[in-house]
Amino acid sequence: MSRSAHPAGPRHADVLPDPPPAPPQADANALDPAIWPVTACRDGGVLHLGGAAVPDLVGRHGTPALFLDEADLRARARAFATAAAGVDVFYAGKAFLCTTVATWVAQEGLGLDVCTGGELAVARAAGFPPERIALHGNNKAVGELQHAVLAGVGRVVLDSFEEIRRAADVASAAGIRQPVLVRVTVGVEAHTHEFIATAHEDQKFGFSLRDGAAEEAVAAVLDSPALELAGLHSHIGSQIFDTAGFEVAAGRVVSLAARIRDLHGIEIPEIDLGGGFGIAYVAGDDPEPPRQTVERLVGIVAQECARAGLPVPRIAIEPGRAIVGPAMVTVYEVGTVKPVELDHGMVRTYVSVDGGMSDNIRTALYDAQYTCVLAGRESDAAAVLCRVVGKHCESGDIVVRDAWLPGDVRPGDLLAVAATGAYCRSMASNYNHVPRPPVVAVRDGADTVILRRETVEDLLRLDAGVDRG
Amino acid sequence: MSRSAHPAGPRHADVLPDPPPAPPQADANALDPAIWPVTACRDGGVLHLGGAAVPDLVGRHGTPALFLDEADLRARARAFATAAAGVDVFYAGKAFLCTTVATWVAQEGLGLDVCTGGELAVARAAGFPPERIALHGNNKAVGELQHAVLAGVGRVVLDSFEEIRRAADVASAAGIRQPVLVRVTVGVEAHTHEFIATAHEDQKFGFSLRDGAAEEAVAAVLDSPALELAGLHSHIGSQIFDTAGFEVAAGRVVSLAARIRDLHGIEIPEIDLGGGFGIAYVAGDDPEPPRQTVERLVGIVAQECARAGLPVPRIAIEPGRAIVGPAMVTVYEVGTVKPVELDHGMVRTYVSVDGGMSDNIRTALYDAQYTCVLAGRESDAAAVLCRVVGKHCESGDIVVRDAWLPGDVRPGDLLAVAATGAYCRSMASNYNHVPRPPVVAVRDGADTVILRRETVEDLLRLDAGVDRG
Repeated sequence: MSRSAHPAGPRHADVLPDPPPAPPQADANALDPAIWPVTACRDGGVLHLGGAAVPDLVGRHGTPALFLDEADLRARARAFATAAAGVDVFYAGKAFLCTTVATWVAQEGLGLDVCTGGELAVARAAGFPPERIALHGNNKAVGELQHAVLAGVGRVVLDSFEEIRRAADVASAAGIRQPVLVRVTVGVEAHTHEFIATAHEDQKFGFSLRDGAAEEAVAAVLDSPALELAGLHSHIGSQIFDTAGFEVAAGRVVSLAARIRDLHGIEIPEIDLGGGFGIAYVAGDDPEPPRQTVERLVGIVAQECARAGLPVPRIAIEPGRAIVGPAMVTVYEVGTVKPVELDHGMVRTYVSVDGGMSDNIRTALYDAQYTCVLAGRESDAAAVLCRVVGKHCESGDIVVRDAWLPGDVRPGDLLAVAATGAYCRSMASNYNHVPRPPVVAVRDGADTVILRRETVEDLLRLDAGVDRG
Repeated sequence: MSRSAHPAGPRHADVLPDPPPAPPQADANALDPAIWPVTACRDGGVLHLGGAAVPDLVGRHGTPALFLDEADLRARARAFATAAAGVDVFYAGKAFLCTTVATWVAQEGLGLDVCTGGELAVARAAGFPPERIALHGNNKAVGELQHAVLAGVGRVVLDSFEEIRRAADVASAAGIRQPVLVRVTVGVEAHTHEFIATAHEDQKFGFSLRDGAAEEAVAAVLDSPALELAGLHSHIGSQIFDTAGFEVAAGRVVSLAARIRDLHGIEIPEIDLGGGFGIAYVAGDDPEPPRQTVERLVGIVAQECARAGLPVPRIAIEPGRAIVGPAMVTVYEVGTVKPVELDHGMVRTYVSVDGGMSDNIRTALYDAQYTCVLAGRESDAAAVLCRVVGKHCESGDIVVRDAWLPGDVRPGDLLAVAATGAYCRSMASNYNHVPRPPVVAVRDGADTVILRRETVEDLLRLDAGVDRG
């Protein structure tokens, strides 16, 4: 059943008891290490992140705010980068990107995926080594291609025949031979523990393997003197907990590589298997550690290449969420607490916080689930079923759909929501003219603003009718 | 079935043929006057808006861009404002707000609903008469209440007991007697042609009528010398095509007014029925004209008051989408056109444009439907089933899920999407670091930027790591 949030979408009355909320965990104050950043702990009942007490952080930075555990992010990045030889790891900037994070992932030895001129501008402002940058996207503007080619990005992932021609023209005009990957639509789609494999795929990305478009695209690249075929790319889904889908995808990509060898007498230097590696949002989510995922993928490609009689190429992967997702925590202040009696006698306690769908659209957009705790204190009060909602004028403005919080939750409490590093701040809006929250890095007790809080003045900056005299 | 766009949501392979796309309209170039702004027409095959040719507008302002038909917006605002005596019309700024639009609705005689300090700041920057401003919201910060009370806003809509206390404290400290409305949760939820009425309502807003909270809230307001009870407020849904739900809601609010008279010996001066009036997004949507809606609501309240033996109070309504929604058109440039063969032999043509879910999240968020046409030319080519998608790195990045466009649609074509005035620019993000598009007012052949296009420099402004030397 859809739980779409709104207008002409399903009514909220329809979407109530499905699925039944998970039972409360034994201790509403506990911090599940699978979900919270590595430095998260309670000291004197108070949540600490990066060695700093959250109430102190809030005293300096206000609420809502996102706190980024530098040690957690760097450890995950390093785990991917060092898991296996012959694997290139590109951080997927779309999950969250600013110059500081770009610098950290560069220091940890990763490359960077960008998919627009804007993301490329951030990478350039960070001084990211261009040869370790990949440009993605299904509809790159000519200006974006020019920007990337002239900057010397290491690879451009090509997505359509128009784009092959455009990239060839741009590289040719620049007098550059541009390494490119061909994005292949392999007919595999994976989420959590499931995947499906079909012949055709109803989506915008890539060249279909089945209808011959992928083979044709490779031929077109090989025919373009200004383009260098650096590899094949596929991407099968997101929030994936199991590598079975990658087996099918890798098998199909390797088959294509074998046909290319037979047709053109060349070996594909690299196979990029994309990203989509899952993280834990709520109890029961069971992602593999990065090292294990990488080892499995290396094994899969080696096995498929052996079967096809091909030497094993370099492998590339593109984790975004799996690096930044668990490293951030959003802290809100509770403004109102409202117990609402429901038709079937149950009571749901609505806990309103000072942010909402403008800083985290994932709950409304993807029915995403989150875990939250009181950050400023512990409580022995029995847990009650809560819905954490934002301050926006919309009934679908939900941050955590089902949360068991201590029954004495009250206005003024600080509430911390875990695993908000990916696709929260990066998709944030100014809906209701709410300024976007800052991102503050925490490490060894020190806190550093890496994205400052927006102000109302920032919001008015675009308004042509505002008197700036 | 959910068509949620993404991670751990349903797979796109699951959501394919449901619902079956509407058949093509007879002429893919036609402009349905129920959907397009009042000045939209074709001249020499080219779409014109506000007397200007769209290709000329694009030449001056680029793509993507939103063009706002001033005549259309003003006519809708005026139709609401002049429909009936005794009715106060508040434009719901959350749909779209900038100083220019605030000025226009003030000139047309409307009040303005704001629901945050940011929206209030826009209203103030526009010089909007404060006594015609209403402050909404389920979780107003104390600072927002102070800002509103000191600015002299005409009404604050109170949503919780905490807020009654806060508003009383703020008004008392300011030495002001603040007019307030009590938001009542009436147990009615309406969308399109349906509504449901329940005793209890599982949502964050308001005081429940059923469990006595609403009556208690009224008593608390009457007990606060710094607050003046100016009325009762209810809001039942959005994109509503039928006033039947308003009948039930008004009946319940009037019953509360009658009990308040009996208990406290006072008459409620105003009943605010909220907004939610629907507009036409696609063929077949059949909203009533504003005048007819207002007349019906007046009749409903009069009838309910007669039944309860009460004098008819003033009525307030809060249209947002119904004023600004149909007045804006988003114009994109097509970048790639990709026919994709599907498993069942059908071909879907993916048309990629230079914007997407960053400037229109409604398709991904609410399964919203839109109508689009080629703007730069007419075509006699037979229509093909298209999906208009954006340039974001996400398969759920869909602008128009099912569109029949001329089969010769090609890169470089301009594509106009109708009825994007409400909840598109106002919910826009910088996902993938894509700058937000401008809003350009058009009237009598003249075009004026009212919200300028964001730049990459704007995006980097918040990044603490960018060298600004």
